Order: sequence, then structure tokens, then C-alpha cells
Amino acid sequence: MILSHMTNQQPALDRVFHALADPSRRMMVERLIAGPASVTELAKPLTMALPTVVQHLKVLEQSGLIRSEKRGRVRTCHIEPAPLSTAERWIAEQRALWEGRLDRLGDYLKELKDKEAKADGQE
Amino acid sequence: MILSHMTNQQPALDRVFHALADPSRRMMVERLIAGPASVTELAKPLTMALPTVVQHLKVLEQSGLIRSEKRGRVRTCHIEPAPLSTAERWIAEQRALWEGRLDRLGDYLKELKDKEAKADGQE
Repeated sequence: MILSHMTNQQPALDRVFHALADPSRRMMVERLIAGPASVTELAKPLTMALPTVVQHLKVLEQSGLIRSEKRGRVRTCHIEPAPLSTAERWIAEQRALWEGRLDRLGDYLKELKDKEAKADGQE
Repeated sequence: MILSHMTNQQPALDRVFHALADPSRRMMVERLIAGPASVTELAKPLTMALPTVVQHLKVLEQSGLIRSEKRGRVRTCHIEPAPLSTAERWIAEQRALWEGRLDRLGDYLKELKDKEAKADGQE
């Protein structure tokens, strides 16, 4: 691994992309974006056993995408949007670099064309 | 799983988020954003055995983030930016929903405050 890539951002990106790589976990995020929900509410639309739901919530919590608190017997989950921004920023950065590359390629092609047109004009 | 979430986008999102959940794979994406590269070039900055590199490339290829072609003995990899856009779009959608929720919450708080001020004025 080269040094420039060993930033603090790496494990955070690993965890958030891993958390988002599952449709049930994305569904939980989508639900929690609308407002806090209990574990039971989050489990309702999913056809899976409660321990599996809890396992998914653990992955989300480890990524920082959600936090939860227990009051009495009810655990309520909340969204934490910061890790989403971290992931979005990384992707946006790649897109900007990619578009920059396309622009440079476009400039280069235009330059070639201009040179060709000039050469034609001198014939 | 509820029906509204069983769209065609789901497996694509699973694969692209999974592909991005590893620092070596993100490094390969970053390298390929700058331009095509051979498997050997991609492996150079990574301290891992070639079969591991090939395994990572397979995950990236399955996600649609890269494509590769073999000419003679050299396999060259290229970036395919479409899956990045798919992932970026999903995140941006969640952010927009989140910001909408904050706005509504702000409006509600303002409304409460206005009502309170009115009530104070009538005392």
C-alpha cells in the first residue's frame, strides 16, 4: 500500500461502502432518513429473523451511519448523515478527475484538428 | 423484502458498493481514472501477490467499474464511470431526503415560535 493512500479516511470509507453494499441495510438507511425508528419497525418490511436484522444494524452502527439508544425495552435508531457525505465526497472526487481527463482529451483533439485545418490552409 | 425496493438497481448498487469497500480496489479505481493501465502496473504500488490483485480486478469487473482486454500477453484495464454515477445518485437522493426533513423540521419549529410570539402578544 503506498503511503499517500494510508489516510484516516480509508477505514471509514471501507466501513460505509461495506454497510451500503446490502439491500436490507440500504432499506434501513432509507427508512431512517425519514425519521427515527425502533428495531421492530425497521424489521417489519424485511422478511428475516430478528437476529439477522440486529446483525445488519450492528454493521450500520459500526460504519457510523446510524446510532441507537435503548429506553426501557425499546431500542430506537437514528440516521447519522456524515458517513454518507464522506462516501459521496470520494465518488465526486473521482468523477471530477474523470471529467478533467475527458476535458484534457477534448482539448487535445481540438488542438490536433486545428493543426490539421492550418496545414490544409497552407497547402 | 418489500416490492418497491426490488428494482433492477439493487444488485448493481450491491456490487458497486461492495467493490468500493476495499482500499486496494479504490486505489485501482483512482489509478484507472487517470488512464488505462496493465494488470502489472496496477499491481506495482500494492504489496500483494498477483493472484490477489487479479481477484480484486475480478470484483471490480463484476461491478462494471472496469473492463479489461487482453492483447498478446498484456491485459489492459479501463475505467467505466457509469456505476460510480449510480452509487453517487443513490447517496445524493438520500442526502436530498435528509435535507428535506431538516427543512420541514425547521419550518415546524419556526411555526411553533411564531404561534408562541402571537400568544405572548395577546396576553
